[in-house]
Amino acid sequence: MYRRIMKKLFAAATFAAILTVPAPADEGMWLFNRPPNAVLKSKYGFEATHDWLEHVQQSSIRFNNGGSGEFVSADGLVMTNHHVGTDCMQKLGSSGRDYLTTGFAARNRDEEPKCVDLELNVLMQIEDVTDRVNAAVTPQMDTGAAEKARRAITNTIEKESLDKTGLRSDVVALYNGGEYDLYRYKKYTDVRLVFAPEKDIAFFGGDPDNFEYPRYDLDICFFRVYENNQPARIKHYLKWSQQGAKDGELIFVSGHPGRTDRLDTVRHLESLRDQTFPYVLNVLRRREVLLRNYSERSAENGRRAHEDLFGIQNSRKAILGMLAGLQDPSIISKKAADEQALRAAVSKDAKLAHPYGDAWDQVARSVRTSEEIYRDYSLLEGAQAFDTTLFGYARTLVRLADETVKPNAERLREYSEGGLESLKMELFSAAPIYDDLETIKLADSLSLLVEGLGANNEIVRKILAGSSPRRRAAALVEGCTLKDVNARKQIAEGGRKGIDASQDPMIQLAKLVDPDARRLRKIRDEQVREVQRQAYAKIAKARFAVFGTGLYPDATFTLRLAFGVIKGFQEGTEQLPWTTTLGGAYKHSEDHQNQPPFALPKSWFEHRNDINPSTPMNFVNTADIIGGNSGSPVINKDAELVGIIFDGNLESLVLDYIYTEDQARAIAVHSSGILEALRKIYRADTLVNELTHGAAL
Amino acid sequence: MYRRIMKKLFAAATFAAILTVPAPADEGMWLFNRPPNAVLKSKYGFEATHDWLEHVQQSSIRFNNGGSGEFVSADGLVMTNHHVGTDCMQKLGSSGRDYLTTGFAARNRDEEPKCVDLELNVLMQIEDVTDRVNAAVTPQMDTGAAEKARRAITNTIEKESLDKTGLRSDVVALYNGGEYDLYRYKKYTDVRLVFAPEKDIAFFGGDPDNFEYPRYDLDICFFRVYENNQPARIKHYLKWSQQGAKDGELIFVSGHPGRTDRLDTVRHLESLRDQTFPYVLNVLRRREVLLRNYSERSAENGRRAHEDLFGIQNSRKAILGMLAGLQDPSIISKKAADEQALRAAVSKDAKLAHPYGDAWDQVARSVRTSEEIYRDYSLLEGAQAFDTTLFGYARTLVRLADETVKPNAERLREYSEGGLESLKMELFSAAPIYDDLETIKLADSLSLLVEGLGANNEIVRKILAGSSPRRRAAALVEGCTLKDVNARKQIAEGGRKGIDASQDPMIQLAKLVDPDARRLRKIRDEQVREVQRQAYAKIAKARFAVFGTGLYPDATFTLRLAFGVIKGFQEGTEQLPWTTTLGGAYKHSEDHQNQPPFALPKSWFEHRNDINPSTPMNFVNTADIIGGNSGSPVINKDAELVGIIFDGNLESLVLDYIYTEDQARAIAVHSSGILEALRKIYRADTLVNELTHGAAL
Repeated sequence: MYRRIMKKLFAAATFAAILTVPAPADEGMWLFNRPPNAVLKSKYGFEATHDWLEHVQQSSIRFNNGGSGEFVSADGLVMTNHHVGTDCMQKLGSSGRDYLTTGFAARNRDEEPKCVDLELNVLMQIEDVTDRVNAAVTPQMDTGAAEKARRAITNTIEKESLDKTGLRSDVVALYNGGEYDLYRYKKYTDVRLVFAPEKDIAFFGGDPDNFEYPRYDLDICFFRVYENNQPARIKHYLKWSQQGAKDGELIFVSGHPGRTDRLDTVRHLESLRDQTFPYVLNVLRRREVLLRNYSERSAENGRRAHEDLFGIQNSRKAILGMLAGLQDPSIISKKAADEQALRAAVSKDAKLAHPYGDAWDQVARSVRTSEEIYRDYSLLEGAQAFDTTLFGYARTLVRLADETVKPNAERLREYSEGGLESLKMELFSAAPIYDDLETIKLADSLSLLVEGLGANNEIVRKILAGSSPRRRAAALVEGCTLKDVNARKQIAEGGRKGIDASQDPMIQLAKLVDPDARRLRKIRDEQVREVQRQAYAKIAKARFAVFGTGLYPDATFTLRLAFGVIKGFQEGTEQLPWTTTLGGAYKHSEDHQNQPPFALPKSWFEHRNDINPSTPMNFVNTADIIGGNSGSPVINKDAELVGIIFDGNLESLVLDYIYTEDQARAIAVHSSGILEALRKIYRADTLVNELTHGAAL
Repeated sequence: MYRRIMKKLFAAATFAAILTVPAPADEGMWLFNRPPNAVLKSKYGFEATHDWLEHVQQSSIRFNNGGSGEFVSADGLVMTNHHVGTDCMQKLGSSGRDYLTTGFAARNRDEEPKCVDLELNVLMQIEDVTDRVNAAVTPQMDTGAAEKARRAITNTIEKESLDKTGLRSDVVALYNGGEYDLYRYKKYTDVRLVFAPEKDIAFFGGDPDNFEYPRYDLDICFFRVYENNQPARIKHYLKWSQQGAKDGELIFVSGHPGRTDRLDTVRHLESLRDQTFPYVLNVLRRREVLLRNYSERSAENGRRAHEDLFGIQNSRKAILGMLAGLQDPSIISKKAADEQALRAAVSKDAKLAHPYGDAWDQVARSVRTSEEIYRDYSLLEGAQAFDTTLFGYARTLVRLADETVKPNAERLREYSEGGLESLKMELFSAAPIYDDLETIKLADSLSLLVEGLGANNEIVRKILAGSSPRRRAAALVEGCTLKDVNARKQIAEGGRKGIDASQDPMIQLAKLVDPDARRLRKIRDEQVREVQRQAYAKIAKARFAVFGTGLYPDATFTLRLAFGVIKGFQEGTEQLPWTTTLGGAYKHSEDHQNQPPFALPKSWFEHRNDINPSTPMNFVNTADIIGGNSGSPVINKDAELVGIIFDGNLESLVLDYIYTEDQARAIAVHSSGILEALRKIYRADTLVNELTHGAAL
């Protein structure tokens, strides 16, 4: 699924973003303030006007837990993927109520339950703040000073903007520091569940079919945003297309791709291949095995661990595909050739050679530093060694007390004043916590810590306090008071004194770990990230100079516009069609004896004769998307909704570092399939009316 | 399950075996020629007579695929665990015939299908050859010469014995070189399947319940050995007890524990904790995830991968428990204190200090060497990088050609003349091979190779030949001719010329890898294993001198006698009973909504009212067992069969390096539960008659 890959796992990876050369293909994750009109005009005779762009931009939604979505009615109705909404449904559920298995349909507004900690963002304004950031960071500064200055100006700009506009304000480093834009978002925090199908059809085919095509997934769900306890009135929403997506049609995807590494240097990619991806995969696999065993013990365990497990399996399959690409000598060779060409051009031109020529070596040095601290950083600052929500709460409380007494400009980014409200929303989440699940996760991760740093390591010995990982984890979880939201609020209100006075063992653990964790963070911020910012900015300028402008930056989980055409592809000797049908879902189930994860839900069998089996269900297109794009609308030239992205095929996983449209495809649910299922299987007439009329009737 | 942990995974681990001090507990995996009569007499007033021992010894069977079993009738009937027989059933199966899922019952002898490559061994004679081995290896030799001399005399002794007796003859290094015994086995290679229940009841509770108690598993199956196409006439077989196991009763277990590390030095154990176990677990988890994904794609995939997957999950859970123990500071502290006491005694006594005092440092050096080559060795000589049966065939063919032209004394151990027959039985196995499964396994392991040695490593580049792991694996499997038994035979008959002429890509791969693999093997044989042999022999002698005799050696997958009593144990606040019942199985299923892996088979529901629900099903006892003991008979003082070992609880996993009877328990199927199920559920009256009468009627 094209949800964002779990960010925590990449805590120590360095995410360079950098200019790319536009290819004469359907390539690009374009900025809304730099739309690809040149290519669109020449290739498709289309121009995205200012109004068109504004409408699409403000119809698009970022799900802060890692996905995308869109407004589909004037009454605050939001569509996204089921697997993006899963996090909310999981947290709403209890041992007696399993939204994921049974699905959900609110019969009226009073029945729409409120998500416990979901925040949606809509991008309202973009402001270029490059000059202001660059003025604060001077070439004379060493990297430590530069990092501090950059952080200070960023925190300050965000706070000023928040005070002035009341909008969530994020400074985004595009082209990895080639440009800084201030993004202002309207924020929705009262988000309620409206409709979700059963996960058996939303995630039909499960892990085996994930990232595959043909597919038959109804991977959708609906939320509604509220303001002042009333459905929000929405100006920009997407109209539902009468006809839906057609073969060969030009389409657009407006969403939030999470991360790409397209113009990482070869040395940088090799580090992903040789260290980051293998390490992360080992961690993912151990968590997958752990949670599968836990889940198999009972249906209730399965319910508790579902979202965690899905996220892990999804990331594992995605990263495995990415690693497979990097282990393909032909791909690295192509990357090396491209890099060689650019470096040759730079070294031939004195005007480029002096300012930019050393950038690749700078990146190499930073990557080496990153590799040296990678394991320790992941375990301690990335908190891989403390895989429990409770540790996350404890650390946030400890750092909140430490950071908020500092001036805003000096704070760690995530504790700056501009972001405090969103941070507290997560910290004071009422999401349920299950002691047994937290205990096995923590025990396993403490064991990972012992493996990583060694049993005789001083911090390890202090953390275990003479106990085994299993006993220590049990004691930490059992004694932890932070399961109670009020206890968290009380400690947070107590500030530094509250932390110092706390006898909570998890708080004490977080305090114990913090000096080492912060030390590693400082190395990474100053010697890895800051160095890469500067070096990649040089490479970016060199590319501009050599290849000209008209480029898009690597993905940053901010809004982008992609385009492409709807078309099938060749796999081996087989030509795969542009679309699948509702009828095909039944056949796919039968081909697998209707056994999980290929078992259609009961509702689909009950209404089998009611639906038109030739209705399109899923379809593929060439748009340039990646994890984070899950839930993005697929729209036609008239900005009508013709589908919703939910996945890419296996061949698309290399899009992390190289675009290709030979076989790589984005996969979407077809708008007609959605309507047909809502009408005939779920009898959700009120919802259908709201979709087709663009407003509740 | 107490099957032997997959031996290949430990290819690079160094398995020291060493004397232990007998504790005043039910401890010990005793040699049949050194029975624990002193303890038995003082603690239980029992003496194992020569006749009793001979009878039990010759009733016991080694399954060469990693388990134990026993004769239960004069007509060659053999009982073992279902999970020991799984390998045979898997290989007999096809897409139309799934012995594991449906179970199997031969109605008559003509219906007993012959296993494709199963060899059973019965220990007939033990001869002390210590003096002969020691005479061949002199103190003046360096470790390279010593290793060669030891290998030469071992190969020679085995060949002489085979020629003289016609029995399979293995020289076994006990007390890791403190003693060498020649074990002579009667070998059965015509082994046929008689009866097996459905795997849903044999492995009821699946991976979640594995290594847990209470349990409700009918983990049994029956084979029959044939000679000259007739059921073999068996003199020594175990009589079925009328009453079965009783609470508090003294019992014995006669089987083949695979490996223990009880008296490894602390440095050696730390190496298991810090390197071997974490590394092996990562490999196991990646294979588990791979095979689960493959299995979920279809029922047929699940059937093909079942045995592989079970073995992997079983090993993963066992090693996880072993690692958890080593990560417990209290266990390592106890080990360190014991070691300190022995070393102090040695250094105080000049007669011990000089010959033995340097042994611990010798071990430490060998462990360091082992750690240095560990990864490369595992990948290349351990063949973790080539996880396909086809590579195993290719390597065996290549080495067979290289080794068999050498004099017997100089050959690698596994190609010595004494063992050639068993080797060829494996090499020419008719077990089915599935291209798709072999391809994904090979692709994943080639990817592991790239991760381990690096993409730029010379041998890696040669192995991949410019391709990606996935494409290379597909080409290797597709082009490989060795799937056909006759092709293997033809190449083997061609000797060196056959190998040189072969265009088979897998043969060429094996040839390519062989120089590096052999180089690593040589380092391990000479600088790790030989050094440890010598060092641990010193430590053994020191222990004899300090603590006296009456010791048992670490496990070596040879026949051992354990003893103990039947009793429950305390877990947390709960007192777990000594036995479970057939009726309890239904309740356990209901507690899990009858969902897999807790779904009882149909047959059990059909005959629910026929059985007596209070019949004992599984029971626990304190006998000292470990992986490899699966299928071992549990017998009473009169050598009657009262149960069959199939597992140990989680608390027993530390038995690898420390015996405890507080909570550690062996788990067995009760003889009465077996009879009741055979009679009432399976209506296997002929089989029941043979069991109760000790012969076919």
